[in-house]
Amino acid sequence: MAAAAGASPPVINVAALSGSLRKGSYHNGLIRSAIELSKGDLQGIQIEYIDISALPFLNTDLEEKGRYPPEVEAFRSKILLADSILFASPEYNYSVTAPLKNAIDWASRPPNVWAGKPAAIVSAGGDFGGGRSHYHLRQIGVYLDLHFINKPEFFLHAFQPPAKFDSDGNLIDENAKNKLKAILLSLQAFTLQLQGRS
Amino acid sequence: MAAAAGASPPVINVAALSGSLRKGSYHNGLIRSAIELSKGDLQGIQIEYIDISALPFLNTDLEEKGRYPPEVEAFRSKILLADSILFASPEYNYSVTAPLKNAIDWASRPPNVWAGKPAAIVSAGGDFGGGRSHYHLRQIGVYLDLHFINKPEFFLHAFQPPAKFDSDGNLIDENAKNKLKAILLSLQAFTLQLQGRS
Amino acid sequence: MAAAAGASPPVINVAALSGSLRKGSYHNGLIRSAIELSKGDLQGIQIEYIDISALPFLNTDLEEKGRYPPEVEAFRSKILLADSILFASPEYNYSVTAPLKNAIDWASRPPNVWAGKPAAIVSAGGDFGGGRSHYHLRQIGVYLDLHFINKPEFFLHAFQPPAKFDSDGNLIDENAKNKLKAILLSLQAFTLQLQGRS
Amino acid sequence: MAAAAGASPPVINVAALSGSLRKGSYHNGLIRSAIELSKGDLQGIQIEYIDISALPFLNTDLEEKGRYPPEVEAFRSKILLADSILFASPEYNYSVTAPLKNAIDWASRPPNVWAGKPAAIVSAGGDFGGGRSHYHLRQIGVYLDLHFINKPEFFLHAFQPPAKFDSDGNLIDENAKNKLKAILLSLQAFTLQLQGRS
Repeated sequence: MAAAAGASPPVINVAALSGSLRKGSYHNGLIRSAIELSKGDLQGIQIEYIDISALPFLNTDLEEKGRYPPEVEAFRSKILLADSILFASPEYNYSVTAPLKNAIDWASRPPNVWAGKPAAIVSAGGDFGGGRSHYHLRQIGVYLDLHFINKPEFFLHAFQPPAKFDSDGNLIDENAKNKLKAILLSLQAFTLQLQGRS
Repeated sequence: MAAAAGASPPVINVAALSGSLRKGSYHNGLIRSAIELSKGDLQGIQIEYIDISALPFLNTDLEEKGRYPPEVEAFRSKILLADSILFASPEYNYSVTAPLKNAIDWASRPPNVWAGKPAAIVSAGGDFGGGRSHYHLRQIGVYLDLHFINKPEFFLHAFQPPAKFDSDGNLIDENAKNKLKAILLSLQAFTLQLQGRS
Repeated sequence: MAAAAGASPPVINVAALSGSLRKGSYHNGLIRSAIELSKGDLQGIQIEYIDISALPFLNTDLEEKGRYPPEVEAFRSKILLADSILFASPEYNYSVTAPLKNAIDWASRPPNVWAGKPAAIVSAGGDFGGGRSHYHLRQIGVYLDLHFINKPEFFLHAFQPPAKFDSDGNLIDENAKNKLKAILLSLQAFTLQLQGRS
Repeated sequence: MAAAAGASPPVINVAALSGSLRKGSYHNGLIRSAIELSKGDLQGIQIEYIDISALPFLNTDLEEKGRYPPEVEAFRSKILLADSILFASPEYNYSVTAPLKNAIDWASRPPNVWAGKPAAIVSAGGDFGGGRSHYHLRQIGVYLDLHFINKPEFFLHAFQPPAKFDSDGNLIDENAKNKLKAILLSLQAFTLQLQGRS
């Protein structure tokens, strides 16, 4: 669908989750930076940080008559309403973190609220820059029925000079910000493509 | 885009590759069955079997001035022209087969002719029905920039009764044929969605 | 080292973890069955069920001066003392569960108490019988420095007749018990081999 | 088993395979460097380069009465005689190469000549230094019944300064040579441990 001349671009709503519970987490910093970018010159994208730290461990014994605990229901509603998902996914022991997997599992309980949504992954770390977590997350996404963008991929080498984050975990590297912006643009384009709005 | 009333559905062209070189291969049988379905009551999908058995092993020493060997160029042209891809991917030693990986690698040489295409995977086997090959192929697809359908998945338990194939490797099980048809319908729908034709 | 004639076989101590927090979990049932086997005709193997349900979500903010929360320290001590590890690993959304990943991550904090230990995986489920969780867990194990047995593998098709578990989650299928016994024998042999006691 | 005082350390024989067919391949260079190291101050390890370029594509139609083509039989014999395996495994499209997978598959045909052998992986490349191929290869190794060393891992960033290889593909970086030596020492120690000779 071509936008009318002069019209604003359609807005997509992105739910952003961080797999780290640590206060000064680089992954929270990546999401803050993405939100800042979306409020700057990046048009047509709104990003909401979704806090997953209050979710209990998934245990189907906690489900009663198809209802989930209140904090789980609140979380599921936010995912349901999002057009697409941004995962800030740290690599712990060559895979995704437990808090992120837990959030993923809760939102997959029937009805699976991830279904059909486009998604992107960003990470920071040593070595592969968090990269091994991406491929586990992508396999998880097959069952969730998420559609991940393929390119670009975002692996930030957090410990190589120059400094990527300040002492509060804020992203300060311009090159990294540009790469993050490219992720958001790709996610936006893929979302509009899948929604038939491009 | 809504099709005009009474119009035929748009046609998608699917390139179908089998990872087995064996004559009586079940995977060739799955492709024959898919082609048969496409000529039956399945509207709007054309499937061409692409033979990969003549390709030499990839060796970039064989590339001259950006030209590939003739059989490679012919193969690449067929992939380039396809709307989407059907992989019949046997599981050998918990991964994809060498002939399939070889074909994949040739067509990824610049310019990568897989880029942006939707794809689906089918397999038959013991144990997981060839399933482990799917997740390796999906990871390979991230770099190729393929977009795999998520659902349904097709893992045929080839050795469980009732017989799934006849002695020539033809698929004879009606239940399996219906599942194969569901794959083709999902691939068709996803192709039209990504192309903005749905 | 050859055991002296008439001597009892050397005993190995196995720590057994279940990735499910559900009371009637099949995975707890698999561990109960393994313990029962170890008290029966299976000589030289002691299995202790290690409860991971009380562990908080990993958050390095909880670490003080290199000390971990008390329940984490208790858990880490049990892993440290074990000769080898038995993971009962359900597949949730094509990967390991959050409670299991969380326990794994806590015990990997410095010093990594998994290092050098042999391990085995068992699972039950539909479809691949929990199998996709195994390969993610094996990749995790590379960083943990675990040595998994390769054969046999144990994927129990929990929902295929005949019934595999009773209504309390106890394993009741003799064929499955024999396969479970084969896992324990392989883990025992590999442990003794790696320890130079075989 | 303690070696007698003054005795030479036991020798292990390593079969080294390169996944690249390219003449100037960095992976062949890694193997040449490993062989050189084994002839230097590294005691007790002999490394033989096993050429896999003459193997035909695996096709079970080529098997007659349990006999394989002559070049396949020759290859299988070399694997069978080795104590352990060194894979120089390039990453093509986020997985292993076709020539390497093909060699692996031939040697896995009954009887599987990989069974029970220790193994290590080295790679060079951009991005993850070939790393994604390792985890696919490790999953393949579960079925082959290979026992990979966990640590260290070797991912050489081939295109970062200073130069790692000369124009003939010979490894010239001292830091990389030291890391390669650490791989060989780890493989040697693990081989002796698994063979009960440590």
